[in-house]
Amino acid sequence: MSKTKGKSLPTVGVVGSGSFGTAIVKMLLENSKKVHWCVRNEFVKGALELRGHNPNYLTSVTFDVKKLALTTDINQLVSACDVVVLATPSIYLSDAIEKMTVDYSNKVFVSAIKGIVPKHNDVVAHYLRDVFKIGFRSQAVIAGPCHAEEVAMERLSYLTIAAAEKEHVDALRVLFSSDYIKVNCSNDILGNEYSAILKNIYAIGAGIASGLGYGDNFQAVFVSNAIREMELFLDAVYPETRDVNESSYLGDLLVTAYSLFSRNRYLGNLIGKGYTVKSALQSMNMVAEGYYATRGIYEIAYENKLKTPIINAIFSVLYEGKDAEKQFEKLTAKLN
Amino acid sequence: MSKTKGKSLPTVGVVGSGSFGTAIVKMLLENSKKVHWCVRNEFVKGALELRGHNPNYLTSVTFDVKKLALTTDINQLVSACDVVVLATPSIYLSDAIEKMTVDYSNKVFVSAIKGIVPKHNDVVAHYLRDVFKIGFRSQAVIAGPCHAEEVAMERLSYLTIAAAEKEHVDALRVLFSSDYIKVNCSNDILGNEYSAILKNIYAIGAGIASGLGYGDNFQAVFVSNAIREMELFLDAVYPETRDVNESSYLGDLLVTAYSLFSRNRYLGNLIGKGYTVKSALQSMNMVAEGYYATRGIYEIAYENKLKTPIINAIFSVLYEGKDAEKQFEKLTAKLN
Repeated sequence: MSKTKGKSLPTVGVVGSGSFGTAIVKMLLENSKKVHWCVRNEFVKGALELRGHNPNYLTSVTFDVKKLALTTDINQLVSACDVVVLATPSIYLSDAIEKMTVDYSNKVFVSAIKGIVPKHNDVVAHYLRDVFKIGFRSQAVIAGPCHAEEVAMERLSYLTIAAAEKEHVDALRVLFSSDYIKVNCSNDILGNEYSAILKNIYAIGAGIASGLGYGDNFQAVFVSNAIREMELFLDAVYPETRDVNESSYLGDLLVTAYSLFSRNRYLGNLIGKGYTVKSALQSMNMVAEGYYATRGIYEIAYENKLKTPIINAIFSVLYEGKDAEKQFEKLTAKLN
Repeated sequence: MSKTKGKSLPTVGVVGSGSFGTAIVKMLLENSKKVHWCVRNEFVKGALELRGHNPNYLTSVTFDVKKLALTTDINQLVSACDVVVLATPSIYLSDAIEKMTVDYSNKVFVSAIKGIVPKHNDVVAHYLRDVFKIGFRSQAVIAGPCHAEEVAMERLSYLTIAAAEKEHVDALRVLFSSDYIKVNCSNDILGNEYSAILKNIYAIGAGIASGLGYGDNFQAVFVSNAIREMELFLDAVYPETRDVNESSYLGDLLVTAYSLFSRNRYLGNLIGKGYTVKSALQSMNMVAEGYYATRGIYEIAYENKLKTPIINAIFSVLYEGKDAEKQFEKLTAKLN
């Protein structure tokens, strides 16, 4: 990445046109005169060019099309940019990035994805390293708490940018900071990535509890157990000196578990109310990352012999056809 | 306190007829055949006797009056009981307890009060020790997360009982446990007491933020900063090995900061929306403990030279007539 000398910013592009990808383009346009954007297909590209807004997500955000370099070709985007922000749902990442044939050896890849890459059953940082030989030094992670819907409304939000290289953290901070975005810095790439994935699973659990009729008192106990379970998981899987009560860990869990904007919580809520998992998934028009993540995270916890009663309960409901009411009743005896 | 041998429970009484006092009587009646209850005045006593419910709080809870030993005389209650649960608002505690002239040397006092005793500007545990010579070994604290309103609905809730003597913790656990109440144990009396007070202050802050128009993303950052500020405060004022992410610390903060039942959050919300502090206080018919606590806690933080930007901001709004919008805008720069 070219250094931030004076007012010259690195050229930045975003891959993905879901709600968070759209929010990121909006954030970047606060500082960059041009943002490259690789959208999902010609329809999205055409609609953006014609009407200046994404036809599917955050439709209230209007873009100045002259400032967008729109494409559906990832190679075109990667060639043009110093910084590539990956913001597809995790299940579509492979489709998008495996078409990349241009030289990307001197690019910085920033993951805004909060999920497991299904084909490889691994987090994005590992997938980029193992499949694309993109080392951690060329990677960064953007963590929340940051619902895209509130970025669209320009409500004050805090992002955490995690990278191994301070130079990258500094450049990304300049790219993202604005009136309504404050940026925290971290070097805990994998901890932030895992916690962003875990919080989606816990949000499904919070939704199930709510759907089953548990109240606010129980939700508070559930979330306070969830952050402790998350800490146990992170310490086992990626030991690092970290305070899980920082915004990107606890804060992101809170916004996802408590907010009505959370699609993972919504999915859980439907299941708690008695929908089958299949019909709950079908009734949503957005991807609930936590659903796909639960399997991979459960396996990691199992392999590491971790005591993760919440993850286990959610796994048994989502993947083993177990009854949510019974599983949560058993779970209540394991919480404190 | 007489030990819990077989099925014989210690005789228990509750002082206070607000919403949490009423909820506690309901909980105790799940196990005790008779619960002594010292209510505020003859009107409340008469209404309970006549209609079987508290005329002012949790009116949906119907009591079997034969199981209640109602009084307005604290001496009568203390004489009859092994365990005295104090559940008045903190500002009324002195009025109630300073009438106590009978021998109470072998009684256990359990505080369910989440506030500072104004006349003494100190927590209840210190007040009982200093003014009444009730040592910590004869004390216990009941902590949440536990909104009284959800106890009324018999929604599953977890209490934490903190006492220095294991014998007391065990007996109290038996007294309080039921289908809808699970009891955690702790020996951190003062930590639980301070955190229960602090969380009310932070809930006022969460309400102010919400009233000012800050969204869910910011609330999550605010609460994640609040729990870290709470940890700093507790470690300084009462060092102890504790995990602030346990339910009675973090959980209690969450239920108070996020729940619509929270009167402290409601108070803050009015102030955030532009009410003066005075008119906001007047418009509530329940005591917002956090208002009274803010002054005492601010002074402790100041004396200990603690970096507590959230407490300071709320103090400046509540007691120094400062503008909430400006104070919170300054605060956003201090959070991360």
